[in-house]
Amino acid sequence: MTLETVSETKCFGGNQGVYKHASSSTGTDMTFQVFVPEHREGEKLPVLWWLSGLTCTHENAMIKCHYHQACAEHGVILVGPDTSPRGEDVPDDEAYDFGQGAGFYVNATQEPWAKNFQMRRYVEEELPALVADNFPVDMERQGISGHSMGGHGALTVSLRNPGRFRSTSAFSPIVSPMNCPWGEKALTGYLGDNRDAWREYDACALIEDGARIDHLLVEQGRADNFLDDELKTWLLEDAVRKAGMNASIAMQEGYDHSYFFVSTFIAEHIKWHAERLKA
Amino acid sequence: MTLETVSETKCFGGNQGVYKHASSSTGTDMTFQVFVPEHREGEKLPVLWWLSGLTCTHENAMIKCHYHQACAEHGVILVGPDTSPRGEDVPDDEAYDFGQGAGFYVNATQEPWAKNFQMRRYVEEELPALVADNFPVDMERQGISGHSMGGHGALTVSLRNPGRFRSTSAFSPIVSPMNCPWGEKALTGYLGDNRDAWREYDACALIEDGARIDHLLVEQGRADNFLDDELKTWLLEDAVRKAGMNASIAMQEGYDHSYFFVSTFIAEHIKWHAERLKA
Repeated sequence: MTLETVSETKCFGGNQGVYKHASSSTGTDMTFQVFVPEHREGEKLPVLWWLSGLTCTHENAMIKCHYHQACAEHGVILVGPDTSPRGEDVPDDEAYDFGQGAGFYVNATQEPWAKNFQMRRYVEEELPALVADNFPVDMERQGISGHSMGGHGALTVSLRNPGRFRSTSAFSPIVSPMNCPWGEKALTGYLGDNRDAWREYDACALIEDGARIDHLLVEQGRADNFLDDELKTWLLEDAVRKAGMNASIAMQEGYDHSYFFVSTFIAEHIKWHAERLKA
Repeated sequence: MTLETVSETKCFGGNQGVYKHASSSTGTDMTFQVFVPEHREGEKLPVLWWLSGLTCTHENAMIKCHYHQACAEHGVILVGPDTSPRGEDVPDDEAYDFGQGAGFYVNATQEPWAKNFQMRRYVEEELPALVADNFPVDMERQGISGHSMGGHGALTVSLRNPGRFRSTSAFSPIVSPMNCPWGEKALTGYLGDNRDAWREYDACALIEDGARIDHLLVEQGRADNFLDDELKTWLLEDAVRKAGMNASIAMQEGYDHSYFFVSTFIAEHIKWHAERLKA
């Protein structure tokens, strides 16, 4: 598998890289970013997967999330993929919350989306294999996090892959796409009307159906204008409580949905992941 | 003077605001950003002015510079103006390095620029008065910094206003616009052919002519692709040495001209400013 280097930039002593490759999952070129902290030659580092939200490419978190300092301090590699396939030949929708930039980390089954929108396969299988082959990652020490639609991605990827991630966190996640306008639109479009097929893409439904996360940390701003209608953190609170799951869900006064919120707490999250990703 | 609030967002416990006002200096609306850390009611905080580089608006540093954590920790207000007047009625040039987005912090004397491009007056007089009236700043405790063209701005504003700034720093500054293509083009365009009129906008010439900065810190990446032809840090090294000025000019191995470089060292700079801005 050929990896093309788009850019490499020194940051906090490490390397912030952007890479491109032809993806077999999506049938398109996919771009992703990797921050590799300074490390000893031959050393393998734990890896934190970062999934971004609606409208984002690989680039938003790289610029706005401010993870570099904490990743450098704790020796954690961070990998951030794009949120969907892109290109003139790839189906799209005019809305910001469906189509390109809004892959929802599902494997689409409906036309015209099924051919390219295989983001679950991409983030669960293809990208990890590619990263394991090309970067100094210790795949026995993986954590996952994300923001908004990417928080949904982090939760559901982790719930469907027990044992793969030592730590899972999320910022402002869509906790139950089956129960909010963003999610209902996307899941109907990508998966069709049969709501049973949606359950493996809904963190609350997955927990209800028996899936578990050992170490879960969620951060949510109370001034987030999507909280009431889209994010509905209380549904996750409820699911976690009923399941007897160990989870920390922190509601933060005054913070909104932006990366200003994420950047405020990212260092704490990375420290929390790093503690669980120690060799 | 009326100040319109464009946005206010909680970040690291403080408030990241964006504001707009009708500027008498530029004859246009001007947008600027202010980060105010959490503080006691009635308390006045020191202020650090941040001047940005070519193509930037008020927004780039706010997103990419990552100053929030250090400003919050040290209790420093940061203010960042736009780099030029903007608008359909404002003269412009097709190039990225002249006209809108490239004000060079001068008072233009040449047509068609003179009417709007009064950025020296804006950052030295109008904006400080506006900020003093509207934010909890202690104007006895001011520092200034900036990046690239904004580093040139920070150095020259400080050199022309002895005693105003307790601390001055710059990242990747254009140290002598009289001696590089970016600067020669801009100064010719805004000020005309008489090079004598350029000297008050050239840090090295100002030092040669007797101006001084008490506390100066400069950060420059050695892998910066503008170093050899545009930034020429050695000219400042030379001017400072000849003047017997106390300055720390740090050349950083492997770093380029981007905000990935700035963000790596911004916390150190803010700490350095804060030490000099103590009550």
